[in-house]
This record gives sequence, C-alpha cells and structure tokens, in this order.
Amino acid sequence: MVVNYYALCVNKTPVGVLGASGYAGRELCALIQRHPHLRLAFATANDQRGATVRLGGSDVTFVAPEDAPIGDAELVFSALPHGASKDWVSRVRDLGVRVVDLSADLRPGNGCEGIAYGLTEINRSLIAGAELVANPGCYPTSILVALAPLIERQLVASDALIVANSASGVTGAGNAPKREYLFAEVAEDYRAYGIGNTHRHLKEMQATLGTWGANADLVFTPHLLPVARGILSTITVPLATPLADPLLPWRERYGSEPFIEVTPETPSLHDVVHRNVVRISAIPLAGTRRPTLLVTSAIDNLLKGAAGQAVQNANLMLGVAETAGLPV
Amino acid sequence: MVVNYYALCVNKTPVGVLGASGYAGRELCALIQRHPHLRLAFATANDQRGATVRLGGSDVTFVAPEDAPIGDAELVFSALPHGASKDWVSRVRDLGVRVVDLSADLRPGNGCEGIAYGLTEINRSLIAGAELVANPGCYPTSILVALAPLIERQLVASDALIVANSASGVTGAGNAPKREYLFAEVAEDYRAYGIGNTHRHLKEMQATLGTWGANADLVFTPHLLPVARGILSTITVPLATPLADPLLPWRERYGSEPFIEVTPETPSLHDVVHRNVVRISAIPLAGTRRPTLLVTSAIDNLLKGAAGQAVQNANLMLGVAETAGLPV
Amino acid sequence: MVVNYYALCVNKTPVGVLGASGYAGRELCALIQRHPHLRLAFATANDQRGATVRLGGSDVTFVAPEDAPIGDAELVFSALPHGASKDWVSRVRDLGVRVVDLSADLRPGNGCEGIAYGLTEINRSLIAGAELVANPGCYPTSILVALAPLIERQLVASDALIVANSASGVTGAGNAPKREYLFAEVAEDYRAYGIGNTHRHLKEMQATLGTWGANADLVFTPHLLPVARGILSTITVPLATPLADPLLPWRERYGSEPFIEVTPETPSLHDVVHRNVVRISAIPLAGTRRPTLLVTSAIDNLLKGAAGQAVQNANLMLGVAETAGLPV
Amino acid sequence: MVVNYYALCVNKTPVGVLGASGYAGRELCALIQRHPHLRLAFATANDQRGATVRLGGSDVTFVAPEDAPIGDAELVFSALPHGASKDWVSRVRDLGVRVVDLSADLRPGNGCEGIAYGLTEINRSLIAGAELVANPGCYPTSILVALAPLIERQLVASDALIVANSASGVTGAGNAPKREYLFAEVAEDYRAYGIGNTHRHLKEMQATLGTWGANADLVFTPHLLPVARGILSTITVPLATPLADPLLPWRERYGSEPFIEVTPETPSLHDVVHRNVVRISAIPLAGTRRPTLLVTSAIDNLLKGAAGQAVQNANLMLGVAETAGLPV
Repeated sequence: MVVNYYALCVNKTPVGVLGASGYAGRELCALIQRHPHLRLAFATANDQRGATVRLGGSDVTFVAPEDAPIGDAELVFSALPHGASKDWVSRVRDLGVRVVDLSADLRPGNGCEGIAYGLTEINRSLIAGAELVANPGCYPTSILVALAPLIERQLVASDALIVANSASGVTGAGNAPKREYLFAEVAEDYRAYGIGNTHRHLKEMQATLGTWGANADLVFTPHLLPVARGILSTITVPLATPLADPLLPWRERYGSEPFIEVTPETPSLHDVVHRNVVRISAIPLAGTRRPTLLVTSAIDNLLKGAAGQAVQNANLMLGVAETAGLPV
Repeated sequence: MVVNYYALCVNKTPVGVLGASGYAGRELCALIQRHPHLRLAFATANDQRGATVRLGGSDVTFVAPEDAPIGDAELVFSALPHGASKDWVSRVRDLGVRVVDLSADLRPGNGCEGIAYGLTEINRSLIAGAELVANPGCYPTSILVALAPLIERQLVASDALIVANSASGVTGAGNAPKREYLFAEVAEDYRAYGIGNTHRHLKEMQATLGTWGANADLVFTPHLLPVARGILSTITVPLATPLADPLLPWRERYGSEPFIEVTPETPSLHDVVHRNVVRISAIPLAGTRRPTLLVTSAIDNLLKGAAGQAVQNANLMLGVAETAGLPV
Repeated sequence: MVVNYYALCVNKTPVGVLGASGYAGRELCALIQRHPHLRLAFATANDQRGATVRLGGSDVTFVAPEDAPIGDAELVFSALPHGASKDWVSRVRDLGVRVVDLSADLRPGNGCEGIAYGLTEINRSLIAGAELVANPGCYPTSILVALAPLIERQLVASDALIVANSASGVTGAGNAPKREYLFAEVAEDYRAYGIGNTHRHLKEMQATLGTWGANADLVFTPHLLPVARGILSTITVPLATPLADPLLPWRERYGSEPFIEVTPETPSLHDVVHRNVVRISAIPLAGTRRPTLLVTSAIDNLLKGAAGQAVQNANLMLGVAETAGLPV
Repeated sequence: MVVNYYALCVNKTPVGVLGASGYAGRELCALIQRHPHLRLAFATANDQRGATVRLGGSDVTFVAPEDAPIGDAELVFSALPHGASKDWVSRVRDLGVRVVDLSADLRPGNGCEGIAYGLTEINRSLIAGAELVANPGCYPTSILVALAPLIERQLVASDALIVANSASGVTGAGNAPKREYLFAEVAEDYRAYGIGNTHRHLKEMQATLGTWGANADLVFTPHLLPVARGILSTITVPLATPLADPLLPWRERYGSEPFIEVTPETPSLHDVVHRNVVRISAIPLAGTRRPTLLVTSAIDNLLKGAAGQAVQNANLMLGVAETAGLPV
C-alpha cells in the first residue's frame, strides 16, 4: 500500500519566517518543510539573503526582509534578534497576519504585558485564541514547565529560595561569529555566565512566577556546555511539606500531555534532543532538615525551547492538531 | 648558559605508585617523572601489568602489585580503587613507609577518623607531620576550599541550605571500560547523577564541614560533562549578612597561597586544566530577599582534585618545596 | 484537515530485528517504528534482554533471541555480530522468512558468493527479487557507490592505484564497552587503524570491484574520528583520460536516484548525518602529470551505511516504495 | 634540596613576539615564559592590544605593534598573518635583529628563495648560522619530515604519485571569529578543504621536494577535524623497490633526533599533542602489484607545526641547547 501523501496535503497553510538564517530560524524552516499542514511561504535573512540551504529535506532560499510577501502568509514566525523583532511584529500585525514571536521583546517582564505567553501546556486556551504569541525563552521553558505543578499546588515553602542551575548547548547563543564560541574555545570547556542573577531570562521567569502567585525567590545560573544543543536544568526547591510520591504533582498535572515526559530516571540531553518534549524528574533530597526536592528538566533548546514550541503554538492558533509536524 | 639539570637532581627521593594505570595513577606517574626531587621507584597495575606507557616524557613499565619493591620507596601513593586501597595502605604502613592514599577509604565520613585529611591549604601543618594522608576527593576539593573562608568567618546564615551543583569531566569516572562512558554515549550529552544527595563525596564534605563547626545543610548534585578533565562547582550560599567586598574572605584567607586564585571573573575549565590550582570567584545575587552569594570554583580533577594535591601533600611530608613539580 | 495516519497504516508488514541493542540495531528499530508500511514484530538482544528503550518515538522491549517469534515476521534484519550472524540467518531462512543480513558474514570476498549484495543503486533488480540480501559495509558503501560510475565507464587508468582514505565516527565500532572507545580516549584524538590494507572491508571492496571488471589496485586506510556518526571517504583516482565535466559520470549514472546527491561542493558529515544518502563530489587535481581525480563521498554510517540501506533493500524486497520510511 | 631556579637564569636572552594574540602567538609566549634561557621582551597584538592573558604560568600584556621595543630583543618571532608579516620582518631586520617568521610569506614556493627554511632536522646547520628563518607550515612539517628519508635515499618510484591526506585541529585556522569555525559548526563534523591541490601549503612542499631532487607528483588534501589541536598525515608512497624493514629509512636518518619518534604503531594525536615532536610510522601495503608504503606522521600543529619548531630554530640561532624549553 503506497500512500500519496502529497494528495493529503494540498491545502497547506502558508506561513513565513522572519530571521530564518539563525539556528532557531533554520529549525523553524525545517519543521515547516516537513509539516503536514503548513508550507513555507517565505524565509528572510539579512547577511545571508540569497543563500540557498537544505532544511527539512528540501531547499530554502532566503529573501531580504523587505522583499518578504508577508500578506501571503496566514501566520508569521519572527526569529529576529531581540530588539529588532518588535518593529517587525508590529508591521506584520498591521497587515492582519498572526504572529508567533520567538524573540524576548514581548515576553513577560519586558514591559509588554497583556500578550499571550506561549508556554503551551500552561496557557493553551489563551494561545488558541490569540493573534500574537510571545514564545518563551529556552531556559524559562525548561524551568517554568518544571516548576508549575509545584507552584499551582502551593507545595513550595513560603519565602523559599529556589536554586535553578541550567546548562545549555552553544546553539542557544546563535550563529553570529564570535571568538568565544569558536570550537577551540568551547570544546573541553565549561563555565557559568550571566552570574549573580543577571541573565535576561530571569525577569521573564520572575514575572511569570509572580502571575502564578509564587512567593519564592529564584536564583538562576546558566552555564555553557560543549554540545551543540540541549538544556538541562537542575532545580533545588524547598517544600512546604514532604511529598509521599515525588513525581505525583507532574503526573497529575501533565498526565495526558503529548510533549511532557515524567520519569523516575533523571533525564539527560540524549533523551530529548531532536524532540519537542520537556522531560522531568524529581527526587527528595536526603539529609536536609527541611523537606527539599531536586527537580531535573531537559529540553532541546531549538525545539521545545524555541522552534518546536513555536510550531506547537501555531498549530493551536491555526486549528490543526497540536502535535502535527512535531517530533517526539 | 646551559644548566646541567641532571646534576641538580642526583639525590631524588624514591616514591612508588600503587594503581598506576588509571587516569589519576597515570597523572601521578607523569608528575613524578618531571619532579625535580622525586623519582619513580615503581608503578603497579593489575590488568595492564607489563605494559609500558609514556608518562611525563619518559617510559613507565607497570609491575604487578605483588612484585612492587615497596620498601625501596620513602613514600607510596595509592591510587587503587575505593575498597581495595585500605588493605594495601596497611601493608605499606607496616613496612614503615609513608602513604598518600587517593582512594575514599580513609577520608572523613568513612568511619576512619583521626587520619590527616589532605586539603593542603586547610591542614598544612597536620599534613607536614603525618605518616599517612587521606587525599581529598575531587568534588570535595572544589567545594570545601571554596566554602572554608565563609565557614571560618561564620558568614553563612544559620540553618542555611547550601546548594552545590558540580560538573565533572569523564576522567573522574576512571578508565575501566563501561558502556555509559563510551564516546558516543557521552559526546553531546549532559546529565546529573548521584541525585538526591546520594553521592559518596557528600558524607566526606558533611563530615569535614561538621569538624569546621558549620551548621548548614548541603545539597550536592554532580553532573557528567562531555569533556575529558576539569570540575566546575557552582555554589549558592545564604549569608548571615551582606558582604561589602564579595571576594574579601578568599583574598584574606588565601592571599599568599601559590595554588589558589581568586578572581572577579567566573572561572572556566580552560582556566585550570593541566594546572594544580583552585580558581574561585564570588558574586552577590541580585533580587533575593536575604543576602545570598554565588560562589564558583574550578579545578582540574586529575591535578588539584587528585594527583596534583597528592604530590603537594607528599612535598610537605618529605620536606621539599610545596610547589615543586606542580604546574601552575 | 487532520489526517488519521493510523487508519492509513493498518496493514503494516511485520518485520523482526536480531541483534537490536547495538547502534545499527537500534537505528533499525527506530526506522521501523516510524515506517509507514512496516511494524516491529520483535527485537532481540543478549546482554540487554528485557530492557526497554525508546526508539523512533516509542518503546521497544528486547527479547532473548531464542524467544523471538521469527515465524511471525515476513522479513528479518540481522544486526548480529560478524561470525554470529551466519547461523541465525540459516535458521531464519529455514523458516522461509526473508533476510537482510547487516553483518559481514555473507558479503563478497567472504567465501559466500552468489548472495545478492545490497548496494541498492547498483543491484536494484537483483535485490528486488532476492530472499536473502547481504547488506554492504559502511566503508564499502561510501567508496563503491562513489567509484561505480568511473569503473562502469572505464574511466580509471589501467593498473591504477586508487587511494581511499576514510574517516568514521565511533558508532561504527559498536557499543560493546572497550577502553579504547571511552570518551576520554577518543575526544581530541584521531588515528588510522587497519593500516597496511588489513581492514576486513578491503576484500569486500576488492571482490566487488573485481566483479565490475576493475583492473585497479586499491589502498584503503580507515581512521577513527571523534564524532558519533558519519563517514567521509577521500579517494584519489588516476584517470585514463581527463574529464571535461568532472561530475558528469555521477550525474548521468545517478541523476534520478532519490538517495544519491552529486554536488560541486565537497560534502561534509553535517550534510549527511541522520539522512539515508550518499553525497558525492569530484574535482580534478591540479599539478599532476597524469590526469587524476579527487572524489569525496559522505554517508551516515548508521543509515546509508547500515540500517537505512537495509530498510531500502527491504522496501524493494517487500514491494513497497523504495523511499518509504527513509529520511532525506 | 631546593634549587633557586631564578638564580640560574639571570642572563636570559630577550626575545619578542609580533602577532601574539593568535593561537600560535600565544603558544610562543607560553614557551618563552617557561624557557630556561629566553625571556619575553614584548608581545604585540592589534585588536587585543592592552589585554592581559595568562600564558605559560604568568601574565602577558599585549602592546600595540608600533609600541614594541624591537631593539630590546635579540630575536623576534613573527606570528603575524600571511601577507602582513613580510613588511614587519623587513623592519626588524633593518634594526639588525634576528627573526624567525612563522608566516608563509618567506617560505619556499612563495617567490622568496634564498631564505633558510626552518625544518630543523633537515637544515640544522643552515639555520644555526642564519639571521632570518622561514618557519615551515604545519602540514609541510608533518609531511616533509616524513618523506625526507625516502627522497634522500631515492626509494620513491620514479614518476610516482604521492598521496598525502592530512587532518588538522581547528586551531590551525586561527582564532579570528568566523561562522564556519563556531563550535556548533565544527563539532560532529569533518570535511576536506583546499581540495584539488589548491591549498597554499602545496607549493611550499613542491618547492622543497624539488630542491631535494624528488621527481614525484604530490596530491595534498587537508581536512578539518573536530579537535582543538594536532595533525595526522596519512601518506601513500609508491616505492622503487620493496623495503625489508619499513622503518629503517627513518631509524637511520633520525635515530639520534630528540624530537623525532619512529614507532611500529601508527601514531595518534594523543601521542603528540602538547609535545614538540614528529611521530612517524610506516607499513607496506598488502595486495598492491607495485611495492607501496603507507606512512603516517603526527604532530601538534601549534608546537612542532609552529611555535615549538620556531623556538627550536631560535635555540639554534642563539647558541643554546636545541631542546631547551621544549616539551617532549
């Protein structure tokens, strides 16, 4: 039996990508190219305008942003750099076209409240009805999805200090040529950055935790890993009371979620790369006077941490199956 | 002017290495081979007995443990596996030969109190007069040297939860062939292990902090990095009171130490690999209600975390310059 | 429009995998799990019997070989080790079940002539009618597919010495735990092995070139790369006569092949990993007295070099679309 | 016994480094800082002028080239980029200061004949008396030192095609920020470049082989490895006559050389990195009609392939021990 997949897909929805030459933009194009219900109407790039690259099994030619036929698309993804995205989002919205913005410009804590925040599993109905979605940062996705069940069930100790250590592959830093990201600088190295609670993603998380009613302080320290992709967050959470079953909050909250995996084994990057999932585990800490939980959470920074969650949100906005075109 | 280095070194002290074929054992041999005042009397191996390998610029042939001329050495390093080391240490001590034991067998928290614990910068005079030294674990070295100035000055908040996240290169796991440490399993991966406060090094640290009078709980979560060598520890410490100069405790405590570097920049593995140093930084955390410090500490797990500190201790025990033969 | 893919696939053909726990075996299971026309009837493992692993988006539990319901399958892939595969292939064939054998046991040059050799693009019609196919080695696939157009068109100088240097990722060595393949041994290293024309794959290539009427000597030197997957072969070929268009032989021979890419740019591993393709380029060598061509050829050793080509062959044998279930 | 090394070294010779901020320049500074008879008079950098970096165990501050006190040095190393070095070399020579130039500007095949070519083991006496030495390229060092004994003894077949495939770590490409050398571009990748005999080092090798009377054609294909440092060259050489002992030419030629190692085992990068050696092996190829040899040769591209050989040459020019300050 040979299925004619092409025939199944004639009515694909046109979508565009602004800022397609970076790592997240390329991943977006690849997902769209393989998507059963979407087709790539255009993909823009600045320095690399005119270049043709193979993404998702077929060729994509980048056009200059000013040449993009924005009105041809029903939805536009912006993977433009922080700061540059906001104006383009306005321009697209003025044409009545829906937007998923992958930049930090419109996320919580950036002075632009009232915009749907695209943590899909948390804000699903809000996203489904939105014309504009601010797609979460990669670190916030790994940490907030892991913390939500504890916050919602008020399991965190009052006035607690939540300590989140995260480590990310270098694609998280983009593909602009910088000396510090050269192979010989990154290989066999490992370091913290954004130390002292200074990373931009902190305020995105603090603002979101605030809307959830959390009363905890958050310490967030990202690290640079000598790997291409993947984020692991290791989170220490003081609890209001011990948990008999440490995985229960996640199992109850996310039991039917197709893109969230709750496991007794601590997740590793290999478990999640090239997949649009958050994989979470939790274990009580031995030998501490107050009950404390160690939560670990792993994602692919380019998929569930960027392009994958963006497509998941777009699926909701366009009314197609939420899981369509997303690898698990 | 050509110096005859050989002539300077005729009276080298003979030392032996038990368990020389592992990564720490090989590093020990390499250091001894290049040491101005030590010479390698023997190096033992089990599976690799008879093998000749180039270490420290010249060849070393491993002999079977039972063929080791222990009495020819003035000091023996044991890099035998945990559990196997204890009996050999007894045997060597019965011959009146001094020992630096790199295994965990005789360290604090393992039921063998009263043995000099070889954190050189903390226990220098004790070590100088000892016949037997328990060389610290790699993670404890990176964490305890970083915490000591805060504990000694009683700067840690009472009842604090100190959260230490560490990441280590795979040489820390030894060179026994195991599937989980194959290149294709480790490359592009990253994961926590010993989660829930279950790693053997925790009790070594707890026991030592206890002897220092610390009243804090410790959370210790090690991670496996896709690098060959190096450890970075990222430590969150609630403070009793804010610090005007966050580096001052370390600068005062370690100001004249040749192997401790205190820097405003957060250290990376590249700063410390192939060097016998601990490199430490600290920065206050913004946005937390109670004063909290983020301390980062980096070492080479095979040098300051194992063979280097062992030679540093042996230098003290043998009365030669503490820095002799140790790369900075 | 939401497609019910499940409904499209109810009549999937059952296939089994012997030796599923190695890298090639796992890749086979993953391909089968995602295949539109195949389903996994069983997967066997020895040491790892009983283990459940996630492959191709769903869980696979390995059964002991003796418990495999071989008769339930219409085709069995053997990814058993060389030497062990032959007997199992006989057993499966005795049950009348078709086989694709990924081991070296039945390949050309191993004393078992007369068996269809699964270089799909070369032996397509033979494979389509075969009950038993010997799937080619990874290095031979990269080299023979690249050389075939030159041999067939008699473009190689008579009595030429063809020099093939290949480099492979470490999954090519399997996942049995051996010290030489530990991360710390492979990372930052690179070396030749099987030197002096002693690698097992040489006779497979020589025998095949012989059947094609080639009169050239072959030098084959494999190297071990610090990457997980991918093979690049760099081949120097003395020509009978200069080529006006160096890519023409491949473009003519493989112009309509879905899994062969002929490009003016020299291919890299990144171009081919996770794809079932051979990517080939060729360029004349400047400054040599006799016309000489440099041919480069890249594959994913686990896909086109093993599991991917095996599925491609099975697709032919089972009468489904040759490209079904294979990533490009 | 504590040696006062400082007292031994009061009469160190001042040397300078132009272009010290690149990988080779940094390695030079590190070697000089640890050298028993040299001291660093100055180190220049352009973009990084004013920066202080730790090299060879102590701090080095880069000065602008125009501020360098060239006349204070007895010898200057130029690690400036190709093209830019030539003028600075003239300027330094005009002040009567000796020069070792690590750029390609003055090497054989670049139109500047008559300048001593710094293959130390080949041109030792010429170098010892020279005021200006053109330090060889990294690839040429690995290949020419390996070929010299065969050429000198006229063991290569007349009109032979010598095929040299080399693979290098990325420090060979320098530390200027370019997208193609970012970690995520290089890790898990491998590719040929300079294909078709177009790499700049080819003419350097051809010109040198010409002066040695070689009558062979050379094919040279470099590859980019995902490692920081090291070069392995795999060279196929048709012989005039079979060799009874394939290692004899090298053993006779280099038997007493402190920096050349001839071994029956094929060398790997791990054997040579951080060491100033060329490690060579050779083995006859089985199954070829004409006698053919496979020669493998490994170096550290930053040491024997650049800074190490430069210091070795400077040692000769300054009349100190040739091995001084060079790691083996």
